[in-house]
Amino acid sequence: MVSTTSFPLLPRIPVVETFPVIENATLSAKATAGEAFPIRATVFREGHDFFGAEAVLITPEGAEYSRTTMYEVGIGLDRLEAWVMPDRPGDWTFRIESWSDPWTTWKHNAGVKIAAGEDEELVCLEGAQLLKRAAAGKALTASNPPSHPRAPKKRPSRAASARLLEVAGILQDPQFDPEHRVGAAMMPDIEAIMQLTPLRDLVEATPSYPLAVDRAAALYGSWYEMFPRSAGAYQDKDGKWISGTLRTAANELERIASLGFTVVYLTPVHPIGTTGRKGPNNALEAGEADPGSPYGIGSKEGGHDAIHPDLGTFADFDHFVSAAEAHGLEVALDLALQCSPDHPWVKDHPEWFSKRADGSIAYAENPPKKYQDIYPLSFDTDPEGLYEEIYRIVELWIDHGVKIFRVDNPHTKPVAFWQRFLLQMRHEHPDVLFLAEAFTRPAMMRTLGMIGFQQSYTYFAWRTSKTEIEEYLREVSSQTAHMMRPTFWPTTHDILTEQMTTGGEAIFAIRAVLAATASPSWGIYSGYELLENTQRPGAEEQIDNEKYQYRPRNWDDAKDFVIERLLKALNSIRAKHPALQQLHQLSIHPTTSEHLLCFSKHVPAKFSSTGKDDTVLVVINLHPHDCIEGTVYLDYEQLWPKQSSTNPALPPMPIKVVDELTEQTFTWQQGDNFVRLCPNEQVAHVFSVVL
Amino acid sequence: MVSTTSFPLLPRIPVVETFPVIENATLSAKATAGEAFPIRATVFREGHDFFGAEAVLITPEGAEYSRTTMYEVGIGLDRLEAWVMPDRPGDWTFRIESWSDPWTTWKHNAGVKIAAGEDEELVCLEGAQLLKRAAAGKALTASNPPSHPRAPKKRPSRAASARLLEVAGILQDPQFDPEHRVGAAMMPDIEAIMQLTPLRDLVEATPSYPLAVDRAAALYGSWYEMFPRSAGAYQDKDGKWISGTLRTAANELERIASLGFTVVYLTPVHPIGTTGRKGPNNALEAGEADPGSPYGIGSKEGGHDAIHPDLGTFADFDHFVSAAEAHGLEVALDLALQCSPDHPWVKDHPEWFSKRADGSIAYAENPPKKYQDIYPLSFDTDPEGLYEEIYRIVELWIDHGVKIFRVDNPHTKPVAFWQRFLLQMRHEHPDVLFLAEAFTRPAMMRTLGMIGFQQSYTYFAWRTSKTEIEEYLREVSSQTAHMMRPTFWPTTHDILTEQMTTGGEAIFAIRAVLAATASPSWGIYSGYELLENTQRPGAEEQIDNEKYQYRPRNWDDAKDFVIERLLKALNSIRAKHPALQQLHQLSIHPTTSEHLLCFSKHVPAKFSSTGKDDTVLVVINLHPHDCIEGTVYLDYEQLWPKQSSTNPALPPMPIKVVDELTEQTFTWQQGDNFVRLCPNEQVAHVFSVVL
Repeated sequence: MVSTTSFPLLPRIPVVETFPVIENATLSAKATAGEAFPIRATVFREGHDFFGAEAVLITPEGAEYSRTTMYEVGIGLDRLEAWVMPDRPGDWTFRIESWSDPWTTWKHNAGVKIAAGEDEELVCLEGAQLLKRAAAGKALTASNPPSHPRAPKKRPSRAASARLLEVAGILQDPQFDPEHRVGAAMMPDIEAIMQLTPLRDLVEATPSYPLAVDRAAALYGSWYEMFPRSAGAYQDKDGKWISGTLRTAANELERIASLGFTVVYLTPVHPIGTTGRKGPNNALEAGEADPGSPYGIGSKEGGHDAIHPDLGTFADFDHFVSAAEAHGLEVALDLALQCSPDHPWVKDHPEWFSKRADGSIAYAENPPKKYQDIYPLSFDTDPEGLYEEIYRIVELWIDHGVKIFRVDNPHTKPVAFWQRFLLQMRHEHPDVLFLAEAFTRPAMMRTLGMIGFQQSYTYFAWRTSKTEIEEYLREVSSQTAHMMRPTFWPTTHDILTEQMTTGGEAIFAIRAVLAATASPSWGIYSGYELLENTQRPGAEEQIDNEKYQYRPRNWDDAKDFVIERLLKALNSIRAKHPALQQLHQLSIHPTTSEHLLCFSKHVPAKFSSTGKDDTVLVVINLHPHDCIEGTVYLDYEQLWPKQSSTNPALPPMPIKVVDELTEQTFTWQQGDNFVRLCPNEQVAHVFSVVL
Repeated sequence: MVSTTSFPLLPRIPVVETFPVIENATLSAKATAGEAFPIRATVFREGHDFFGAEAVLITPEGAEYSRTTMYEVGIGLDRLEAWVMPDRPGDWTFRIESWSDPWTTWKHNAGVKIAAGEDEELVCLEGAQLLKRAAAGKALTASNPPSHPRAPKKRPSRAASARLLEVAGILQDPQFDPEHRVGAAMMPDIEAIMQLTPLRDLVEATPSYPLAVDRAAALYGSWYEMFPRSAGAYQDKDGKWISGTLRTAANELERIASLGFTVVYLTPVHPIGTTGRKGPNNALEAGEADPGSPYGIGSKEGGHDAIHPDLGTFADFDHFVSAAEAHGLEVALDLALQCSPDHPWVKDHPEWFSKRADGSIAYAENPPKKYQDIYPLSFDTDPEGLYEEIYRIVELWIDHGVKIFRVDNPHTKPVAFWQRFLLQMRHEHPDVLFLAEAFTRPAMMRTLGMIGFQQSYTYFAWRTSKTEIEEYLREVSSQTAHMMRPTFWPTTHDILTEQMTTGGEAIFAIRAVLAATASPSWGIYSGYELLENTQRPGAEEQIDNEKYQYRPRNWDDAKDFVIERLLKALNSIRAKHPALQQLHQLSIHPTTSEHLLCFSKHVPAKFSSTGKDDTVLVVINLHPHDCIEGTVYLDYEQLWPKQSSTNPALPPMPIKVVDELTEQTFTWQQGDNFVRLCPNEQVAHVFSVVL
């Protein structure tokens, strides 16, 4: 017989089309410690006998962590699903096991045949034989060459075995009628034993598929972006600007923490070049006093491994990180891999830049556009040297307590560079997270997620209509969630969309509620509290952009608006509700108005950090000017989706919901529920369901 | 540095989401010798520079067979496609190569910059350097660890090199103005050299993905099904039935061949059991003279390796095969892996059957239904023994000239059994084809295709409305074509749908045109010519079904109908038009009537067996009773779809089309075209486009 196993055979009970598997299992699907996610596969068998399947989670050490019964989700399509949850970061795997289920087959057939009065003795005998096999733990093994891992067999306890044999005896006892005998085999305690130590024939498994499990902060976080030099900057009596420092910036931490944020993100802190430095509002020439863009990195004071002298020293940086930590904040640092012409690398490592034909170093350009203040790196001339240097720099900042990097424009560097870099980082610094700031086409954004970025900026800022938002929420929560963790930002220092400029305070509130409740990771850019909403003419970003000048802010001004209180409330609601800290489970509910968006998020008790079911229902008026009323159609089965093989008992209707923003209580029911939301009163309900 | 290559890195210019790849490349995608099919991938890069990609086909011997430029199909989605065509059966592979394209980048930038009068000298210098590199064949190599195959570098000829260097000189010659110099570099002959021996930097490739390429008959065939015992059967003067034989059946071959069929499919020819034998119309008890179902295989005269004595001997079988061959027909034999209780295996190998609890052999049942005339095989008690025996039997029939097997109910046997069996068959008998007769749920049908069945019966018989048919044609021609080759049968001995019983001759004509033109493989069941259309009450099959009795037919009766002439015409049109012999390219065209279906199929000259473009346009009136008129909206770009990186020049409008059924000529145009089709005149147009 020739070897026919150059391809592995399918399991005896076929399992195909397993999800989540990325790039033929050469890349790892994403999962997060403490978040449940769905595993799916197409499972079916020949003939009419019953079968079962389990999703098996395997720890980084190779131990079996959990087995979860799969249940059908696509009726007629043989599509099965199981929700599983890893408990810690690491390189996990999962596989699916399938088997023939002779006991369920027997129960089905016995039910039909006894009712029809057919083959009664035979049915009893078959049942007895099965119970004897179950008692002895004698499952049939599959015939395939053993190319698949097999599950360890479980045998019933001595007492359970004895009980099975007792019932096997009853099944063969002619003094009882067959109906009675079969009834004995269907007693709950027999069922319990057969559940605990099931008789599984022909068990086989799929290959193991890789899962990159990250710490919770990869998924859940409330970010606050700031330019450290603005905090505490002032003009002296001659009108000359004095930069804020890491010390003065640290003074902001208490306020940021008090608003409930969990991550403070600093734009680059490195020395800034002077050659080609941009002035206010992206002016081609900077004035002598203009501080320049922190993204024009590198001067004679140093490059990516140095701190801008105006901001302070490494000791000041360490103080900032410690102070943040003391306030429960993680620090995220910008990693902008580009250089000012004054960067030390330009002299020391000209091979890390592209040379133009005349020998000069190429500045950034997209003809006819030129960016003469920026030298992009070239990754193809000395790839090893540049790789090692970038790795060294990131490790330097890790040594100074940074565990999150916001990577500027990763899509302008080779994907394979990032893949290698992130694999090594993950291996050596598994706690360190990288957020991809790639605002580009979907393929690149998706691929950066696939190859290892733990988090990704998204198109959120440009999804404004109800249907756009609904589609996008479905996309990020289910279609791409296994390869890309989204983060929602209403604005950034680079993004101020048209929509934000005309809706006044209401639109700032609407977008904050939406970002904070729809995505487990969200963030705001400093100044959001003050409704800064004027674009530089012709640009989709702030006028007088902080990239080019100091923008100290007087936070007392925020008292004029409700937005600061709203931010605090939203972050507090997020912290309280596990449902809002997860991505995968989100349901859209229809409403009668194109301006009323409604969605819910749910975590069942078994996957909840509180140990209790958690359900949050959000209704938002997307219109920043008009009061909108309408009805929300609430589907209970969408509100409490099935996430296990046992059907959850839906709570009795109607339900009590509490608006976490106002503490008002409402009664909501399956079906139609009236809502009215006004921009100048309340733009949204964030209900938690009281059970 | 730790090894970070436990996962392969993506190519330097990323290529992801490659298609067709099945089950993470553990199963082979399907392709057919002489049929073009699409390879797709998502390809993109960092930054703004240009890049390219090619699909590379690799022969079973490992040699490079073709390289095909990929072109964008999903604008903004970075989705690329290339149509390729293997020329012979075997285990082929394909990969995708991608590279940075500095010459196209330079041409783009030079065009922009010269027009703007910027960097003119530098542009010229860059161009000169590129041409010098091209002349020397000095492409940059990628920085990734060499985990990917790399393409061999091609260098220009000596003359071409000299010409490139000459233009490099012009580019650097200050006596000409820059515009003139750049113009010299953009001359057609330079372009031609750069096309022939392109300068490709950073070339890398995806892994190789498996392609199971089958001979053309796996895709294209016109089947005729017959029960050999009916052909030539007669009643003697006492009314006793005398069976037809393989010799009398062979007399039918001339007629079958004259109708243009290419495969004659015989229902099982083995001895038939008597125990539990079914009588006419599936009666539970057979009369003494009833011949029984040929699917109740096995008696004391033998089993699957024997021929029913009534049909003749192996010599008669060999004669049948030779006669078929002489008429240009292949013989397909039924492989029905089930046994009558009288099958020799029952005594000799009781371990190949399931035992019931009382030690008796289990008959087929799906409680409460019982099929006491059939013993299904059990594949789990002696899997090796049974496997070897089945393999032996199939090889026996292969030795007698059978190269196609129609496998009865493969979905009632283990999928992994078929996977192993078909892998070994493919290895040892690459010409032998297996058709899966699995009428069951989509997952099983799709998986049987995936694991190796060369052809599959489909839901065609139950797709009757226009929208159902349009959806189904899209599904089989593009969504599932890489894993399942469809065959369309209007009826079989097991299937006579409601639709066929009420539409008279028109519905037989409609379904024949549809099956014969929409699918490269189609078939009819004997008697179709005679419009046999009466169901057995309560069953979706023929009354007086040939499974249980002799049904000799008088083919002179067929002269009363047009259907026989239509079958002949359809098979002749199929033989003449390569477009109808392929599956992958099919376009739907909208019409104004819910009864008018229109689709076209196209093969460009480079993939056509005739060496010429071939385009067939089919319009069918699906209504078997009413004349239908309406307009067909013809989209030229759908009629001549892009199947290469060079845009085909669309033929001038209007076009001349010839109805191959009537030889009438029409003028059709881009846009609206009037059609009127009547059931009692002509149910369809089968146009070929005259260019």
